[in-house]
Amino acid sequence: MPNRSITAVRGFRAAAVACGIKSTGKPDLALLVSDRPATAAAVFTTNKVVGAPIIVGRSHLRAGKLRACIINSGCANVCTGARGINDAREMCLDTATQIVAEGESLPLTSILPSSTGVIGRYLPMDKIRAGIPLVAAALGDSEEAGNAFSLGILTTDLVPKTAFTTLRLGGKTITIAGCCKGSGMIAPNMATMLAYIATDAAIALPALRRAIRGVTDRTFNCVTVDQHTSTSDTFAVLANGMAENRTITSGAAEKKFTAALYDVADSLSQQIARDGEGATKLVTVKITGAKTAHDAKRAAEAIANSALVKTAIHGGDPNWGRFISAAGYSGAAMNVEKSVCGVGKIVVFKNGRPTDADLKAVQHTMQQKDLTIHVNLGTGGKSTHRVYTCDLSREYIAINADYTT
Amino acid sequence: MPNRSITAVRGFRAAAVACGIKSTGKPDLALLVSDRPATAAAVFTTNKVVGAPIIVGRSHLRAGKLRACIINSGCANVCTGARGINDAREMCLDTATQIVAEGESLPLTSILPSSTGVIGRYLPMDKIRAGIPLVAAALGDSEEAGNAFSLGILTTDLVPKTAFTTLRLGGKTITIAGCCKGSGMIAPNMATMLAYIATDAAIALPALRRAIRGVTDRTFNCVTVDQHTSTSDTFAVLANGMAENRTITSGAAEKKFTAALYDVADSLSQQIARDGEGATKLVTVKITGAKTAHDAKRAAEAIANSALVKTAIHGGDPNWGRFISAAGYSGAAMNVEKSVCGVGKIVVFKNGRPTDADLKAVQHTMQQKDLTIHVNLGTGGKSTHRVYTCDLSREYIAINADYTT
Repeated sequence: MPNRSITAVRGFRAAAVACGIKSTGKPDLALLVSDRPATAAAVFTTNKVVGAPIIVGRSHLRAGKLRACIINSGCANVCTGARGINDAREMCLDTATQIVAEGESLPLTSILPSSTGVIGRYLPMDKIRAGIPLVAAALGDSEEAGNAFSLGILTTDLVPKTAFTTLRLGGKTITIAGCCKGSGMIAPNMATMLAYIATDAAIALPALRRAIRGVTDRTFNCVTVDQHTSTSDTFAVLANGMAENRTITSGAAEKKFTAALYDVADSLSQQIARDGEGATKLVTVKITGAKTAHDAKRAAEAIANSALVKTAIHGGDPNWGRFISAAGYSGAAMNVEKSVCGVGKIVVFKNGRPTDADLKAVQHTMQQKDLTIHVNLGTGGKSTHRVYTCDLSREYIAINADYTT
Repeated sequence: MPNRSITAVRGFRAAAVACGIKSTGKPDLALLVSDRPATAAAVFTTNKVVGAPIIVGRSHLRAGKLRACIINSGCANVCTGARGINDAREMCLDTATQIVAEGESLPLTSILPSSTGVIGRYLPMDKIRAGIPLVAAALGDSEEAGNAFSLGILTTDLVPKTAFTTLRLGGKTITIAGCCKGSGMIAPNMATMLAYIATDAAIALPALRRAIRGVTDRTFNCVTVDQHTSTSDTFAVLANGMAENRTITSGAAEKKFTAALYDVADSLSQQIARDGEGATKLVTVKITGAKTAHDAKRAAEAIANSALVKTAIHGGDPNWGRFISAAGYSGAAMNVEKSVCGVGKIVVFKNGRPTDADLKAVQHTMQQKDLTIHVNLGTGGKSTHRVYTCDLSREYIAINADYTT
């Protein structure tokens, strides 16, 4: 099978090394480099408490051009004041120095820094300073190099998350490939913690910015594991133009590119939910019949974030009263008499009362690995929303009751 | 020790029996009767999906007079359409018939019905019909009878929750005593599921209504176990006037009565959080320095409802980044540079960076049974809020992953 990792995109090289931040000895410093300056757009967390790399990254993204992303896992560099900002800048400076040939130079602002892990600790800069030359030396365009990158950004994730697609545009083949990390502290408003998508498309900055915004709202912002919006969420797209297509600026080409970007981001979003901390199931919550888009979103999120819903799903327990009652407290307009609640393809509640659906069949559906919960709010409105989430297990408690120590 | 149960209030009798709704054989039908018509006020759930007893109860409370509360546990009578409404009315009718002497009659509307348990099932009316004469025959004013009542209303609660106080008013002693149930599906906007407070105070209906509203906002509406607002929440106060005080209508007497009612409701609220499903700790979240009361509430609730916060507390893990980051995504205005985060009496974050607090001491504080988390949002505002919650344990998952089946 051909390379489908992030290095499958022309002109991108990647690597990861273990520099000693994680006590487990797993890779914790990852680097993605575009050989040419890439048009770049990013979306960051909406949390008011933000990591130092977010503050630095927002400023570096202003010009819409990037050469590299440097990411450490194991420490988030959040709540670290001026020292944290200096550390994030130094990561960029060291990276800029390492990825160009001797004698050349690269501005600090061509590098996007990210850090993920525990909040409230300073970065171990001695380890990062020593690690950056090593990860730069390891850069390659092989599948192994791409896979190493997707592993190096993980924290409590059990599996790497990657996605790949191609599209044809004006006789040229464009590749889009990316990876992300995210398993805990996952909730809408940048749901991902970290996601990087590389493409060789030639695309104008305004078109890329429109694409990333539209796609984020329908993918990463529709994932929730535990309703806890992270301080470090970052989703960046780098487009280096090496596919040599006519630069995408608007219209049908932008639409086609955005659809392909959506496919990649949607796949990564589902992978985050499926690998939620302690998760055993991928759950899709669908709301229809809402008065407004905001109502549809509120109802979907109330269901997806309810611990009672998530434990019922974990137990394969056909306790659908928890689904409909979560919609009921979400604040969304609702007409209970006209509401419908479905589990998979089985309608369990309609006309204000339970249907005569066989609870054994509902239970069987709820025991599957992939499950869809559907609630029509009965308002006669046309708005809909869809959220990806997972179940809540004892394993989630085990992972999170003893994390820093 | 004298009787401090709900039957310690003059003119109130109580009882509970096992009528067979709960498969465990535990008491599941409870009755509270005032010998005289009592002035009564109640607060119900804000969930848009409401149980049939809530619909019936709201209508019965309109006149502000009650003689009795009849409560079954084990089935919530929610999402049950017209049949559910008829069943709730029949519970009231049967109770009204049973609690008066032969030949006398009592209107249906003097009875408040409540049901708690699984949603989406019809009440087993054969069992309830047979049970009501039994529970009426068991009515008594002994401590045992009061304790039986507080046990009969429980579902997944591990312990009964009761509170008692007295106050002196115009030379008369007024007694206020109550009990509640609540352990799962507990979140603000009537946090309690079911609470009944009896008093022998003579109080005018408008004053009682003001008292119950004010007290609810500062007590039951400040508890969250799992953020899931129940469809059955009910908090009722019955005041039968047998203390023979001058009827409370306003002013200093109302203030004094409201303060005593607050003490009873506040104690019951803390007991709910402490007995939250799977809980091992009582956690108090305090917000200060908020711009508005709404902001203070949002930030407190975001912290109290975060699974990451609750698991860190369960593990006694000094991972305070989870507290401050939950405030950060709550939507409340926040000035991170001027925010302060405290764990018990230890300040862990200030001036935008970690303090040099000893993490071992923080860990020791976090391992206590009672824990206070404090976040000052740093806006310079004067608004504050306080929420009671509990930790999140494997036991919560065990209780909720296999509940109906």
